Amino acid sequence: MNVHDALGEWSIRPGPIYARLAAALRDAIENGDIAPGTVLPPERSLAARLAIGRSTVVQAYGRLREEQLVVSRQGSGTWVAGARRTAATKRPAASLRLAALRDPEVPVDLATAALPAHARVRQLIADLGRSDDDCTALLDGPGYLPAGLPALRSSLAERLTADGLATIPEQILVTTGDQQALSLLATHALQAGDTVVVESPTSPGMLDVLHGLPVTVRSSRPVTDEGSDLLDVLDRCRPRLAYLMPTLGPHGRMLDHASRGVLARKLAERDVLVIDDASQAGLAFEPAPPLAAFVSADNLITVGSMTKLHWGGLRIGWIRGPAPLIAALARAKARVDLGTPVLDQLIAVRLLCVEDNVRAVRVAWLRDRLDHASTVVRAALPEFSFAPPDGGMNLWLRLPAGTATAFSEVATRFGVAVVPGSALSAQGIADDHVRVVYARPREVFEEGVRRLAAAWQRYRTMPPDTAPVLL
Amino acid sequence: MNVHDALGEWSIRPGPIYARLAAALRDAIENGDIAPGTVLPPERSLAARLAIGRSTVVQAYGRLREEQLVVSRQGSGTWVAGARRTAATKRPAASLRLAALRDPEVPVDLATAALPAHARVRQLIADLGRSDDDCTALLDGPGYLPAGLPALRSSLAERLTADGLATIPEQILVTTGDQQALSLLATHALQAGDTVVVESPTSPGMLDVLHGLPVTVRSSRPVTDEGSDLLDVLDRCRPRLAYLMPTLGPHGRMLDHASRGVLARKLAERDVLVIDDASQAGLAFEPAPPLAAFVSADNLITVGSMTKLHWGGLRIGWIRGPAPLIAALARAKARVDLGTPVLDQLIAVRLLCVEDNVRAVRVAWLRDRLDHASTVVRAALPEFSFAPPDGGMNLWLRLPAGTATAFSEVATRFGVAVVPGSALSAQGIADDHVRVVYARPREVFEEGVRRLAAAWQRYRTMPPDTAPVLL
Repeated sequence: MNVHDALGEWSIRPGPIYARLAAALRDAIENGDIAPGTVLPPERSLAARLAIGRSTVVQAYGRLREEQLVVSRQGSGTWVAGARRTAATKRPAASLRLAALRDPEVPVDLATAALPAHARVRQLIADLGRSDDDCTALLDGPGYLPAGLPALRSSLAERLTADGLATIPEQILVTTGDQQALSLLATHALQAGDTVVVESPTSPGMLDVLHGLPVTVRSSRPVTDEGSDLLDVLDRCRPRLAYLMPTLGPHGRMLDHASRGVLARKLAERDVLVIDDASQAGLAFEPAPPLAAFVSADNLITVGSMTKLHWGGLRIGWIRGPAPLIAALARAKARVDLGTPVLDQLIAVRLLCVEDNVRAVRVAWLRDRLDHASTVVRAALPEFSFAPPDGGMNLWLRLPAGTATAFSEVATRFGVAVVPGSALSAQGIADDHVRVVYARPREVFEEGVRRLAAAWQRYRTMPPDTAPVLL
Repeated sequence: MNVHDALGEWSIRPGPIYARLAAALRDAIENGDIAPGTVLPPERSLAARLAIGRSTVVQAYGRLREEQLVVSRQGSGTWVAGARRTAATKRPAASLRLAALRDPEVPVDLATAALPAHARVRQLIADLGRSDDDCTALLDGPGYLPAGLPALRSSLAERLTADGLATIPEQILVTTGDQQALSLLATHALQAGDTVVVESPTSPGMLDVLHGLPVTVRSSRPVTDEGSDLLDVLDRCRPRLAYLMPTLGPHGRMLDHASRGVLARKLAERDVLVIDDASQAGLAFEPAPPLAAFVSADNLITVGSMTKLHWGGLRIGWIRGPAPLIAALARAKARVDLGTPVLDQLIAVRLLCVEDNVRAVRVAWLRDRLDHASTVVRAALPEFSFAPPDGGMNLWLRLPAGTATAFSEVATRFGVAVVPGSALSAQGIADDHVRVVYARPREVFEEGVRRLAAAWQRYRTMPPDTAPVLL
């Protein structure tokens, strides 16, 4: 894990800034997130990255030196002292998605892209297991269903068929949220040394999966951009896998209907497995079918989710693909967890029956929030720019200057969490944007933007060695 | 996947035996479970393995040859014809656990070691979300909790502490059943080329995980055996990881209290990460603490489950270990599924409050079933032998002759599913035993044993080239 990622929400700890930084470094060293022997960043560069003064970093390093946790030598910098035995034998890369799930101590969370449970979810939970023959039948069985509850596989297949993508139940695997869908697909399809192409920006969850695998990740511009270079990148890099978000990536754009058909046919011609992430489809202002609806091709896989529309805690996602691939993924799913919990799947079956209704309510609410949020942002952050999204929960705000990574650090200290573009891009590019969740109650969003504006005032007037660089 | 695993429940298909076998081979070839170029087993050896006549295999291969799915050459045998393009880029090894989850078309299932939901589970589900402030609080939040519901982590820590293993919530990770606990731990701890030691027999779920990793698996005799060679095997093989079942492995034995202390101290001295699988602990007739309760050592990890005692469909498991390891595993968990569904975790919190009561009811029921099952087996299968188990759901039946793999094939054709010992052993040894679930309603178990006895009569009188070999 790199030192910056290992620090987490360092600045919300108590005490003076240097002590907070020292405490975060101490924790990261002691729990192994920063390995023995790791050279810490030079004081000046860490200071710039964290948007604090250089002398603060000097003080923090000094404190750790006193504690013999780090060693410094003139000309060689500062590094973490010798190994200590731990039970863990290796460390995963930083979980970017975990970074996006901000610490609950940050007062205003505009980082977590998730909604509270819809009223229909609450009602279905309250009714579950009361004069409920389907539930009783499940409770009478062993509850092991690696490929998913048969009724849910059927309902999802019917739903996709009605939406224009002919599907049979054997083409559906139920997963624990779309995150598990991405993890299973990537782990199954990729071998060491393979190349994967993603857009920039892309899903932090997919980046998190890919960072844990021995593969090379290349980026293209979003397929929703005019003149995206995706096909050129595919032809140049010859990836095994391409992961695409034509439906509401972090930028909030939808690829239009006609362009979907063109893209689908071009992808079908190529020797690459394509994951079309449709997990946000339920939150689109104007729905559009997944790519696989436009052409019959075994290499176009669709991933969906019921957690974005209904509730994050429901954790029901799915994969739609050729039946043999789904059968193989079901075997992999049996290996990783033997199946998603069953009650949630039964609730999901029932939610599918009312999905159009839930969608209409959610979309109307999102449109209302978006109108309000746009006004608030334009007034409080007039130098920031954004294109109105086509749905979803996020504004993709462009900074007038500086880096989103440093700015979001400052924002955290002002009590508002946002996700810097660097966390949504394989190469850490896209760092001229922050992702801000607008799908919040009005007063929460207003308070968050007030704090963002204060953070921006602070950030743009910082001393020279931490000043924003004009882009 | 080897050809035998790829065939699945081939014999329950309709039609004559040769056509059933041909159909199963055709499916396996077409969905890629048997890769192009794979040499099929010689007719005589496949016949012996499947307990059918050689001429039946000859007919089945002939049918596939006509369909140009396989090619035969004198002296070179029969192999699968050339490649066809599929979306899947590689295939997982056979899921042994899936094999243990028998096809629902087999009339009597004595293979799936799982119980219907306990009455308290049903009541808690019916009450969930009704005048339920804790549930409402969860529904009002985003529902993303990669390390687990805080209330469940606390309750599990308190429970373990009360049982003699002092634990804080930061030492607990909630998982989707114990299967995910094993998968996360193995994936995290192991690197390519590492060695793992398991007992024989062991958990099919752990074997399933290990077969998917580039590691070497070695076996010892069960730690519950007098004079187990585990420590010798550890000292000889120097494994990174040892996976142990001192609490009700497939053989149903418990390691006694005094021996646990001795074993725990010897393991703590060694440089090996130990997984102590306590997932069946709730079904022990006489409970015993996990190994970690006997010695303070960072290398002793405990895995537990609430699905065995309460209901398989609940899918709540846990890992207890040093806090830094748990933090690292939580990051891995965020990557694979972003957290176990939340409602099931809330139900689990409530089940922990009544666990002693549920345990008492379950154990009394199991003891009653065991008395009955022992009588039934001794009467109907007098040549089979077994030691009375110390709890759990299984009888570990020793065959008087033949192989459990072939016998369980015959049993499937007689409409009863059992798990052959070969599926519970890394080297396919232990094939002189079958695992038979006795935790079934009386009439179901009696019918299953009637079918097993008929299958045994058939198997022991088979023609010479498929006859059982005396062990």
